[in-house]
Amino acid sequence: MRNILVIGAGKSTAVLIKYFQDKSISENLCIIIGDISLQNAEKLAGDHPNTKAIVLDVFDGDSRQKAISEADIVISMLPARFHIEVAKDCLKFGKNIVTASYVSPEMQELHEDVKRKGLLFMNEIGVDPGIDHMSAMQVIDRIRNKGGKMILFESFTGGLVAPESDSNLWNYKFTWNPRNVVVAGQGGAAKFLQEGAYKYIPYHKLFRRTEFLEVEGYGKFEAYANRNSLKYQSIYGLDDILTLYRGTIRRVGFSRAWNTFVQLGMTADDYTIENSENMSYRDFINSFLAYSPTDSAELKLRHYLKIDQDDIMWEKLQELDLFNPNKKVGIANATPAQILQKILTDKWSLDPEDKDMIVMYHKFGYELDGKKQQIDATMVCLGENQTYTAMARTVGLPVAMVALKILNNEVSLTGVQIPIHKEVYDPILQELEDYDIIFKEKERDYLGYNPDGVKG
Amino acid sequence: MRNILVIGAGKSTAVLIKYFQDKSISENLCIIIGDISLQNAEKLAGDHPNTKAIVLDVFDGDSRQKAISEADIVISMLPARFHIEVAKDCLKFGKNIVTASYVSPEMQELHEDVKRKGLLFMNEIGVDPGIDHMSAMQVIDRIRNKGGKMILFESFTGGLVAPESDSNLWNYKFTWNPRNVVVAGQGGAAKFLQEGAYKYIPYHKLFRRTEFLEVEGYGKFEAYANRNSLKYQSIYGLDDILTLYRGTIRRVGFSRAWNTFVQLGMTADDYTIENSENMSYRDFINSFLAYSPTDSAELKLRHYLKIDQDDIMWEKLQELDLFNPNKKVGIANATPAQILQKILTDKWSLDPEDKDMIVMYHKFGYELDGKKQQIDATMVCLGENQTYTAMARTVGLPVAMVALKILNNEVSLTGVQIPIHKEVYDPILQELEDYDIIFKEKERDYLGYNPDGVKG
Repeated sequence: MRNILVIGAGKSTAVLIKYFQDKSISENLCIIIGDISLQNAEKLAGDHPNTKAIVLDVFDGDSRQKAISEADIVISMLPARFHIEVAKDCLKFGKNIVTASYVSPEMQELHEDVKRKGLLFMNEIGVDPGIDHMSAMQVIDRIRNKGGKMILFESFTGGLVAPESDSNLWNYKFTWNPRNVVVAGQGGAAKFLQEGAYKYIPYHKLFRRTEFLEVEGYGKFEAYANRNSLKYQSIYGLDDILTLYRGTIRRVGFSRAWNTFVQLGMTADDYTIENSENMSYRDFINSFLAYSPTDSAELKLRHYLKIDQDDIMWEKLQELDLFNPNKKVGIANATPAQILQKILTDKWSLDPEDKDMIVMYHKFGYELDGKKQQIDATMVCLGENQTYTAMARTVGLPVAMVALKILNNEVSLTGVQIPIHKEVYDPILQELEDYDIIFKEKERDYLGYNPDGVKG
Repeated sequence: MRNILVIGAGKSTAVLIKYFQDKSISENLCIIIGDISLQNAEKLAGDHPNTKAIVLDVFDGDSRQKAISEADIVISMLPARFHIEVAKDCLKFGKNIVTASYVSPEMQELHEDVKRKGLLFMNEIGVDPGIDHMSAMQVIDRIRNKGGKMILFESFTGGLVAPESDSNLWNYKFTWNPRNVVVAGQGGAAKFLQEGAYKYIPYHKLFRRTEFLEVEGYGKFEAYANRNSLKYQSIYGLDDILTLYRGTIRRVGFSRAWNTFVQLGMTADDYTIENSENMSYRDFINSFLAYSPTDSAELKLRHYLKIDQDDIMWEKLQELDLFNPNKKVGIANATPAQILQKILTDKWSLDPEDKDMIVMYHKFGYELDGKKQQIDATMVCLGENQTYTAMARTVGLPVAMVALKILNNEVSLTGVQIPIHKEVYDPILQELEDYDIIFKEKERDYLGYNPDGVKG
């Protein structure tokens, strides 16, 4: 029996556990679920014979080290900031580890030591980051192997509500951490490359500079730029690329309406609102509008942001019950972002029957034999229910798959890594297809920003 | 002879020195100018018999303490962050000190010790902060003494170019630190009170929510909100006030045009632009606009920010030579704000003959005998030349005046203080009138935001 220690019984863990349980006999696996709450771990373990639930407080060194030392591989599904203690123990006891999180600077620092011990610390192998890395690198490597030169790479991901559960005017519900949605894009200008020129979009313009995408069978989407589109430029080997852009997918019209909140200042998270606890939703709106003894908040807002009488955006604001003078915020010392999150959570929470959806869209522009060409690759993953959500599946499955492959010595990589190598992405993308996570590729005419090579 | 030690031979110091020199015989004053550059100090001292120049490095404890121990009063004209070392020595050697800077938390911490020793550390006694405190408190105290209840206080200050030197479309030149102008308003939402309601303006809307002001003989101005209008609410005794607003004065139209830079993202100071050193002004503009192989930066900008063909704002941008493809930025690793500052400094620097101007405008709304009334007080101070600028005069004169009064035991206050007490503001405002720094008051109908008491 090989012991797989899974730390953290969170949202994505159910899919992961099921994957191992389904293979526990054929692969001789014993799954140990460690969580600070034994109840959570037990719930996830169920009555499966090869699964054990244990209490694991990541801040309690003794119990943590005992569990890790007895494992054959460790999977940390904890929030990203807690990985490092687990990782250090893995280094100490010579265990491989898998996480779905971004490589932190502290994690990166372990690289040489991990390599020296012949271990593999695989990170960013969920969805964005994860499946995006793998599906992008598979096509980029293929283009390069044919002798093509990459000139454009754009990559978009969105966590959305499935079409059958899409029941509000925003075509959006919270399928993951609402806070990340409310503060998305803050903390500096978005940076990307367009035809060789660095471009910068300040936060307050981010949601007005979207581009449209169409996914066959699913209709139109839009995407706004991520903070730093250049993060993986060197890692993907794209130092000479002309256009490099990463974005977040929403349904068409979402960003323009969301911009209302940005313009008003409702997404700010760097100060608290006076008397927030006792204010109504209407008071909250009014605190961003000039005082008037007579004019309504509605008309002041329409005038301030120049929203026409027949603009559907207005219905979106009304749908949120934003102008209600009776609904109370009820949070003391709240930032505008915290209050907005509360208002949105009232309306955008998933109903028990609702399903989510992950959409991914890559554009690869390249030059081959003197000709500019383009491949578009799209993937849509639908949730099955509120446990086996699209988010949980796209995060949990690749983590589980790579963990099993590492356990079976099918991965030769060592050090602190992300899944950009063929020996990782090929088999995992292949196996993901068995779970209906499939990229559809389409060759098309090159549609970059300057297909005819006009000099600006 | 009484020794006045003036530390820092900066811009505002010339006026201050001249004030003391003119009174050096009648008042028995010896003026010691200490600066890290002996040359700067000597230049300021001139050949006046009662003035000495010395080298004073504020980070050299020995020379600093020697100079302070021999002084009868100390004036620190250093940048604000350097005051604290001087202040601590003053406490140690039992000397009073005067600065024109905001009271820092470290300075405030000395209050009890300073008080216990019977000393006075007088701060914020230049212009904004300084003359604004004094002129406001004089009227507020007078209203209160008559039994009036303050319901509105708005206070505006601007450092501008004098009308005779006003020669560009922005009606603006840099009369003080350009950097403060470029990053003005950043770092959080502006906060103020309007008819009892807290109001917040995010940075990207700040320059679109101005109000107009008219000063007799000088025409129309506009003002945008300062970061925190409530800073002096308790200090001024205005805890129950309904409307409290502090703003910065510009000529009409400045803010709307400045908003172009804000919207584009050119005032950002939290990241650096790639290849900034070798980019042209036109490249700089283009880095905030979407790529196009054919469309001009001009049309892209007009379209992006919806600037009509016949909008005078456009001429303002052109006047700055913003679209020049040949002028180089020439600063490595520059933030957008640093590049913008360079572009503006080309055009907005004072010519040798140019004169500056300080404009101050207070509105006091109050209720007396059941009637709402308003007093407006305005002050315009014109610079004489590039040494005796309006800025140097309004900063240097009140500092010098209070220092002499403290020396002459005419101020009974102790502790760390700002000039909000009658025994300080009355004589200084009186003496400032001899130097043509005069507030004109006007009683007018109450013009608050809800004069008729309509319920919103």
